[in-house]
Amino acid sequence: MNDGEPTSLVSLDRITRRLDELLDIGRTEDGGVTRLAYSDAETRAFEYVQSELPTTYDVQIDSIGNFFASVSHEADQTTLIGSHLDSVFNGGRLDGALGVVVAMEALDVLSEIDASPRHPPTLAVFRGEESARFGHHTIGSRGALGLLTVDDFSRTDQNDVPLWLAMQRAGFRPSDLSEPTICVERIQQFFETHIEQGRVLDEADDVLGIVTSIRAPVRYEVTVTGTYDHSGATPMNLRSDALAAAGEMVTAVENAATDVEGVVATVGDITAHEGAINTVCGKVTFPLDIRSDTINPRDAVEADILERFADIADCRGLSVSTDELDRSKPVSLSSQTVDKLDSTVYALDIPYQRLPSGGGHDAMNFQKVGIPTGMLFVPSVDGISHSPYEKTYPEAIEASAAAMVRVLS
Amino acid sequence: MNDGEPTSLVSLDRITRRLDELLDIGRTEDGGVTRLAYSDAETRAFEYVQSELPTTYDVQIDSIGNFFASVSHEADQTTLIGSHLDSVFNGGRLDGALGVVVAMEALDVLSEIDASPRHPPTLAVFRGEESARFGHHTIGSRGALGLLTVDDFSRTDQNDVPLWLAMQRAGFRPSDLSEPTICVERIQQFFETHIEQGRVLDEADDVLGIVTSIRAPVRYEVTVTGTYDHSGATPMNLRSDALAAAGEMVTAVENAATDVEGVVATVGDITAHEGAINTVCGKVTFPLDIRSDTINPRDAVEADILERFADIADCRGLSVSTDELDRSKPVSLSSQTVDKLDSTVYALDIPYQRLPSGGGHDAMNFQKVGIPTGMLFVPSVDGISHSPYEKTYPEAIEASAAAMVRVLS
Repeated sequence: MNDGEPTSLVSLDRITRRLDELLDIGRTEDGGVTRLAYSDAETRAFEYVQSELPTTYDVQIDSIGNFFASVSHEADQTTLIGSHLDSVFNGGRLDGALGVVVAMEALDVLSEIDASPRHPPTLAVFRGEESARFGHHTIGSRGALGLLTVDDFSRTDQNDVPLWLAMQRAGFRPSDLSEPTICVERIQQFFETHIEQGRVLDEADDVLGIVTSIRAPVRYEVTVTGTYDHSGATPMNLRSDALAAAGEMVTAVENAATDVEGVVATVGDITAHEGAINTVCGKVTFPLDIRSDTINPRDAVEADILERFADIADCRGLSVSTDELDRSKPVSLSSQTVDKLDSTVYALDIPYQRLPSGGGHDAMNFQKVGIPTGMLFVPSVDGISHSPYEKTYPEAIEASAAAMVRVLS
Repeated sequence: MNDGEPTSLVSLDRITRRLDELLDIGRTEDGGVTRLAYSDAETRAFEYVQSELPTTYDVQIDSIGNFFASVSHEADQTTLIGSHLDSVFNGGRLDGALGVVVAMEALDVLSEIDASPRHPPTLAVFRGEESARFGHHTIGSRGALGLLTVDDFSRTDQNDVPLWLAMQRAGFRPSDLSEPTICVERIQQFFETHIEQGRVLDEADDVLGIVTSIRAPVRYEVTVTGTYDHSGATPMNLRSDALAAAGEMVTAVENAATDVEGVVATVGDITAHEGAINTVCGKVTFPLDIRSDTINPRDAVEADILERFADIADCRGLSVSTDELDRSKPVSLSSQTVDKLDSTVYALDIPYQRLPSGGGHDAMNFQKVGIPTGMLFVPSVDGISHSPYEKTYPEAIEASAAAMVRVLS
């Protein structure tokens, strides 16, 4: 960083210390972290962030536990910056926490230089971004924007505790779901830094990524039903083998998405019901996940896959059923915020690229309600995500904080 | 059946009563049966059989619990007839039990007509034919013939009880493993009736099947190792997807065996390790089972499959390992006993066919040590096996008993 620039005040040591101290809240034996949505650990992480803020910052907690820190909650306009502090089971040190700590660093630098930005920034930390506990993502940011549904509130965790009860136990009193918990009109823009969770930046040796859009999934649970038979006693031509059919379908999913720009399609799990070494398996289920950052090619790949499934089942004389689990819309981030990030990162003179985000993030909800939103990615080393082995590069952390200082200035 | 023939004395009522009374020993909620090897239920079933024998029969129990009933254990020559009484978890009413009850019926008829066969028959009931408890089949018959190994004796059940301890707890004292527990030289031939466990007879509307050979498996545990990635964030061309590779391999197994006469190849189970809807799966394991009644085509299909696996892994830049679990030799049954059964069944004037057995049976061990052996199959309705829904046809049961009366006469 150039001396004399505010970005030269970015302290990698301070960022690293805060990431390490946050890791200690919910740290697992493997060196990962478990801080589930609305858990005590998540609450303690929020308290830690508050304890690290400059004294000039006031904190407001909304009715579902989201955290907003600002020097001026009364200003007509604000730029939101932040991320989340919850994690998956045994997740990594950076997912969520990095975006919060980078935002804190940017606010620290602005405080140190007594900056007076046109839109005074607000540090935003959201509850429950991960779906690990309640099976649905970005609870806090959706609640803040009035996007939660009654269905979300009644979703239960592994111990059958519904979300609304978990919120109450954490000390919050959610009221009208359809109303935002915050004053949305004040928010001029939203910025979030996050780890990529994929291997695109790392493979390209890029230090930062600028997110152009958020891929959204259509998801199915697929059930293939054939006939159980003895593997030794049943000739190949008398079989109705659900696992062989499923194998062909898994390959078909891959083939359908390969070479279609911007679309990914995945079978990430499979269950052979009552499977055994000496059995022709009669029932197999697997989940199907198709994502894209634009809706048309995703629809085309989806239709192609479902047609291939039907053909495979027909040819084999067995049945396939596809139950839709989710159908979300991809979100294109505002060119205003994307271009602002792009020129900012360009000025840092580091390798970077524009790319879609494969996973959902709090940022997408702000764009959905029309607030110009920008996201910065740091690389995932070897693409590792949701794991104690999640890592990025120090220069990427430093560069992301420098970029956030500049866009907030 | 013709009046005047001994076969007219076969009583389907008596057979049905005995099958029903045996079913009550270890009966499950689903109407199936759980009588595991060396369990109390198996022992009670043996006691039941003894209680139903004509009083002229003496019973001898060998050192590992096999049961032999004869009017003359001192005769120089004998024909063995029987099967087993253990079952898989929640198995069917007929698997094993039918062969014992049909043999009892034949002995009853021979007693009723005061027959004096050249080789006085011995009812043989073997322990532990199923691999459900100790992971290896035909324990009793292999032990009777001196074919058990130290490895067999140290195999453990689901509660880590080794076979040798289970035998001791059931009251038996196995001694030198390499010695037969019975006088093998006396046994002139062995006959077993069993349910087919496949759908060949039922599809062909045949009432009986005459087994020509026992298919034997070569078995592998296959492990495909790729790379875990986020399903949304990882473009198709940057993936090393173990589940997609496994899908292709499962299809390759099927293709390699289809249209190869007498060979079957099956993947009957699959595990996606840490699989999830939003993950590109990095590790998949599955068992592979290849069987044939002759060794050369089985070897050819095996080599073909292993080559296809290596090609698939190479093309995808991931690794596959294949651990051999089992390599058994197919057994051709003696033409002497097969032809005798064939002419006997032919005389019954019912539809029948010769076919290989897909599964292993006690009978194969007798043929392995050079004793001419014959097996009769009754149809499995809809091919259902190892299930409470296992069924056959009354005329098949009656015909099998009539055939056994004739071959023993």
